[in-house]
Amino acid sequence: MIEDKSQERTPLSDLGEFALIDHLTKSLKIKHKSTIKGIGDDAAVIECKTKQIVITTDLLVEGVHFDLSYMPLKHLGYKAVIVNLSDVYAMNATATQITVSIAVSNRFPLEALEELYAGIETAANIYNVDVVGGDTTSSTSGLLISVTAIGEVNKEDVVYRNGAKPNDLLVVTGDLGAAYLGLQVLEREKEVFKVNPKNQPDLDQYSYIIERQLKPEARKDIVKLLKELEVKPTAMIDISDGLSSEIMHLCKQSKLGCDLYENKIPLDPQVISTCEEFKIDSTTIALNGGEDYELLMTIAQEDYPKIKANPNLTVIGYMTEENSGMHLVTRAETKIPITAQGWNALNDQE
Amino acid sequence: MIEDKSQERTPLSDLGEFALIDHLTKSLKIKHKSTIKGIGDDAAVIECKTKQIVITTDLLVEGVHFDLSYMPLKHLGYKAVIVNLSDVYAMNATATQITVSIAVSNRFPLEALEELYAGIETAANIYNVDVVGGDTTSSTSGLLISVTAIGEVNKEDVVYRNGAKPNDLLVVTGDLGAAYLGLQVLEREKEVFKVNPKNQPDLDQYSYIIERQLKPEARKDIVKLLKELEVKPTAMIDISDGLSSEIMHLCKQSKLGCDLYENKIPLDPQVISTCEEFKIDSTTIALNGGEDYELLMTIAQEDYPKIKANPNLTVIGYMTEENSGMHLVTRAETKIPITAQGWNALNDQE
Repeated sequence: MIEDKSQERTPLSDLGEFALIDHLTKSLKIKHKSTIKGIGDDAAVIECKTKQIVITTDLLVEGVHFDLSYMPLKHLGYKAVIVNLSDVYAMNATATQITVSIAVSNRFPLEALEELYAGIETAANIYNVDVVGGDTTSSTSGLLISVTAIGEVNKEDVVYRNGAKPNDLLVVTGDLGAAYLGLQVLEREKEVFKVNPKNQPDLDQYSYIIERQLKPEARKDIVKLLKELEVKPTAMIDISDGLSSEIMHLCKQSKLGCDLYENKIPLDPQVISTCEEFKIDSTTIALNGGEDYELLMTIAQEDYPKIKANPNLTVIGYMTEENSGMHLVTRAETKIPITAQGWNALNDQE
Repeated sequence: MIEDKSQERTPLSDLGEFALIDHLTKSLKIKHKSTIKGIGDDAAVIECKTKQIVITTDLLVEGVHFDLSYMPLKHLGYKAVIVNLSDVYAMNATATQITVSIAVSNRFPLEALEELYAGIETAANIYNVDVVGGDTTSSTSGLLISVTAIGEVNKEDVVYRNGAKPNDLLVVTGDLGAAYLGLQVLEREKEVFKVNPKNQPDLDQYSYIIERQLKPEARKDIVKLLKELEVKPTAMIDISDGLSSEIMHLCKQSKLGCDLYENKIPLDPQVISTCEEFKIDSTTIALNGGEDYELLMTIAQEDYPKIKANPNLTVIGYMTEENSGMHLVTRAETKIPITAQGWNALNDQE
C-alpha cells in the first residue's frame, strides 16, 4: 500500500508503440514446439498437436476487478493470466498459449508496465504457456487487461458443463471463500490507511486469504491428477463467481437438480476465524464469494473409489433429477433452495 | 451526429451479467462445423481442420481509437471485427472464429450494446466467422472492445512478414489514405456541429472516404484471389498504421531495402480532391494515414504475369538489398528515405 516515490518514472510516450511492445516482450521465451510463430507478425501461428483446441478470454478492468491501491502490478499481471488458464483447465485441457492486450493511461510510467509484464511472464513460466501476441494501447483512464488463453485437448477428453447425470457426485477442489475474504481484509486496511497513512498493518494472521486474493493459482495440477486417477468428470466448471453460481450453471446446463451439503464445504481455518471476526457466515462466503479459481466437477458414482482418499478433492453433494430442484442441506438438516448471489461485475457498478 | 433522445434506454443493471450475454448473443448462429462449442462453457472448443491455426487480437478504446460522436455503434462493432480479420488475411489464412470482449460504463443503455452487437453480427455473417466467446463487464469510464480472431491455414500457405527477397515486387491492394482523410472530414464536421448544432452537413462529396473510415472492409477476397491466381506472396502485412510503417516492417523483418514509387501509389479521386481542399499532400496521407486495412505484399518477379492485369493489385515498387535502404522515388525522380510517421496510439495521447 505504500508507494516508493523515489522509483524511476519513464513516460510511455518516450517509446513508440512498437518499441514499447519490443521492450516489454523481449525476455519472453517460446517453450512449446507448437508455437510456430509468436509475437512479431500480423498473427501468431500455432500447430494443432491435438484435433481440438479450446479458447477463452477475460477482461480485467481497474476500479471494477482490481484496485491498484493494494494490488501490486506484478500480482495483477499474474492474476490476469491465471483467471484465463483456470477456464482452460475447466475444459480438462492443457493451456499452451496466451495473448495479452493492455490499455493503459499515461499516468502509468514504463516501470509500471514492466512490473505488470514481470507478473505475466512469471505466470507464463510457471504454467508453461507461451505469450504469442497482444496489443498495447493507451486508454483515456485507468488500466485494462484482456487475456485470451488457448489450450489443447484430445477430443475424447473435453469436459463440458452439460454432461452431469443424476446421482453423480458433486466434487470441489481446494477450499472456498478465502479470496473474497482476503479482499474484505484489504478493503478494511485501505480505509484504515486513509485515516492514518503511517499505520503499518499487521496482516500475518490473514496471510493465506490475502494471498488467495492477490496471487490466486489455477488448478493445472487437477487436470494432471484426474488423468493419473483415470477419472474423467462428467461435467466441470471453474469457480470464479462463487460456488452457488457455478453449481447453478452445471445444473441448468445438465438439466438436473442437486443436493449440496453445508457441512461438506471445504473451508480453510483462516476463513473460519476471519468470518468470526467479521461476524459473517462462512457458508455464505463460500457460496457467494467468488474468485476461488478452484474446479467444481461432477463424477460418476463408480469413480468414487478412485478419488476418495485424495486430499485435493472433496465430495460436497450429488446431482438429482431436475424437478427436485437445487438445494443446500444445512448443518441443521433443513433444505433451502440455492440462489445465485454471486459477484456480478455489472451490478457492482450501481 | 444527432442522437434520437426518444429512444428507449434500458439500464444494463436491469439485467445480470449472464442474462446480458445471453440477450446479446442469442441471435448468433454457428456456421462452421469446426466450431464444436461456441458461447456457453468455460471455453470454446474448435476442431483443427488444418494443421495450423493463426490467432490475433486488437483492442479498440473509446477516445483513442474511436469517437462515438460520429461513429455509430453498429459501425463500431463492425469495424472492431474487421480490423482483426484483416490480420488473419495478412497471414494468407481463412478467418473462422472470433471472441469479443466488451467493457462498458453504465452510461450505455442495453439498446446501445444491442446496436454494437448488431454490427459485430453483421461482420461475422458477411465474413463467415463464428462468435465463439467473450466477456462483458463494466468499465469505470467509456467503452472498450477487445476482439481475438482465429483462422485456419495449410502449413504450406502461411505468409509471414520476413520472406521477401531482393527484386520482389512490392504490391498493394485497393487504394490508400481514404480512411484517414475521412476521419479529418468527420473531425471538421464535429467542430462545425459544436458551434451550430442545427447545421446539417452535406457529406455527399466525401461519401467514399467517410465510409472507408466508418465501415472499413477486410480483404478476404484477396486471399481467395491469390489462390485462384496461384500466387503465394513471399511476405505480407495488413496496412493499419500507414503504408510507410508497414513497408518498414516488411523490410526490417526480411532484412531488405526497397524503392517505392510515389507515382504508383493508388489513390481514389475523392482522396485527391479532398487533399486539395484540405491543402495537404496526398502522398503524405497515403504513406502515413493508416486504417486502410488493405494488404501489402511482396511477389516474386516470375509471378508478375499472373497479377499484372488485375485491378485489385497495384505494383508500387520493388525490394532491394538491405544496404540500399528504404526509399521513396518521388514524381520528380528524387529519392528520399522512408520514415515512419504512422499513427501511434500511445503518442496520440500526449
